[in-house]
Amino acid sequence: MTESPATRRRGKALETAIMQAVWEQLAEVGYAAMTVKDVAARARTSKAVLYRRWPSRAELVFAAIVHGVPTPDDLPDTGTLRSDTAQLLQQIAGRFATVDTDVLWGLLAESARDPELLGLIRSELLSDVHRGPTAVLVDRAVARGEVDPSRLTERRIALPLDLLRNEILVRGSITPEAIAEIVDEVFLPLVRPNPSG
Amino acid sequence: MTESPATRRRGKALETAIMQAVWEQLAEVGYAAMTVKDVAARARTSKAVLYRRWPSRAELVFAAIVHGVPTPDDLPDTGTLRSDTAQLLQQIAGRFATVDTDVLWGLLAESARDPELLGLIRSELLSDVHRGPTAVLVDRAVARGEVDPSRLTERRIALPLDLLRNEILVRGSITPEAIAEIVDEVFLPLVRPNPSG
Repeated sequence: MTESPATRRRGKALETAIMQAVWEQLAEVGYAAMTVKDVAARARTSKAVLYRRWPSRAELVFAAIVHGVPTPDDLPDTGTLRSDTAQLLQQIAGRFATVDTDVLWGLLAESARDPELLGLIRSELLSDVHRGPTAVLVDRAVARGEVDPSRLTERRIALPLDLLRNEILVRGSITPEAIAEIVDEVFLPLVRPNPSG
Repeated sequence: MTESPATRRRGKALETAIMQAVWEQLAEVGYAAMTVKDVAARARTSKAVLYRRWPSRAELVFAAIVHGVPTPDDLPDTGTLRSDTAQLLQQIAGRFATVDTDVLWGLLAESARDPELLGLIRSELLSDVHRGPTAVLVDRAVARGEVDPSRLTERRIALPLDLLRNEILVRGSITPEAIAEIVDEVFLPLVRPNPSG
């Protein structure tokens, strides 16, 4: 509370500015041509600040991807699990639509040569960051009686984002039809109360 | 029928020998160190023969991966969809366990730099080669009354291999527990006859 705005920008606000700058650079020049220097300039900070926290360009890009996963406060809350889940997937898909999917492939390419980066990516994907958003939507749906908690498993909660990721990798883009299929043909039938038990 | 064994080796038998040689080289030296020359030597053929059909090392490796997807004749036929599907996933998982998962990442890495290869991989993944094995198992299960054909969609039929692929990429390996989850928590409940309609 005693922090000045300038001080605060060293924390959350600076991080947000940097993550946004990464994404804007990716959208503008693509993964291959993006430099840490240009990101620093765009975020009005220094390369040193960036390298202190993200030791490589790939880690910086990966952080920006993770940063884009909606936090509980940004999550849709429409009153039904169906449209909440579809909107969550659309949010993430829309974010990737602003950059080329080469960003993801470029990152995979680097991680193939860099076991440490691969370990980082895998541990993030398996962490709550990735499971989290769907789990929040599901919790709310349980409270509304839309979901049978006895049908919930980690595997089922992970499905929407697992299938979205597969879609981005295999097809290179995500259509509204694909999102509808993931939600209506796979996710909802597995968690909704099942009269047959 | 008038072909000599030597002539026939130019066709199917030669292809099988080459694909097997690729896999053995991958298991022995890994993706980065594998050369077309060594594969040719191992398959007792020439580099020229290989390059004629597979213009790059990456395409050769991808062909070997696709070649390993079981054909209808190699598919498990145990009498239940549950164990058929689990065995199919285990076959594919077991094959990848003999090489490092870096093979997949190495291939993704190359395709990130090579749009033509990426197009080839994507069209294969979306083709019947990939959908095929599960579709055959499902057809047999429909005939046994184990599957409700009205519940079948392309998305659902694709699930076992989509989720297996995600597992290989995200975790780097596939456990029997993961296979059981994919089959019992996701796939079967979506295609089995549902008393509630």
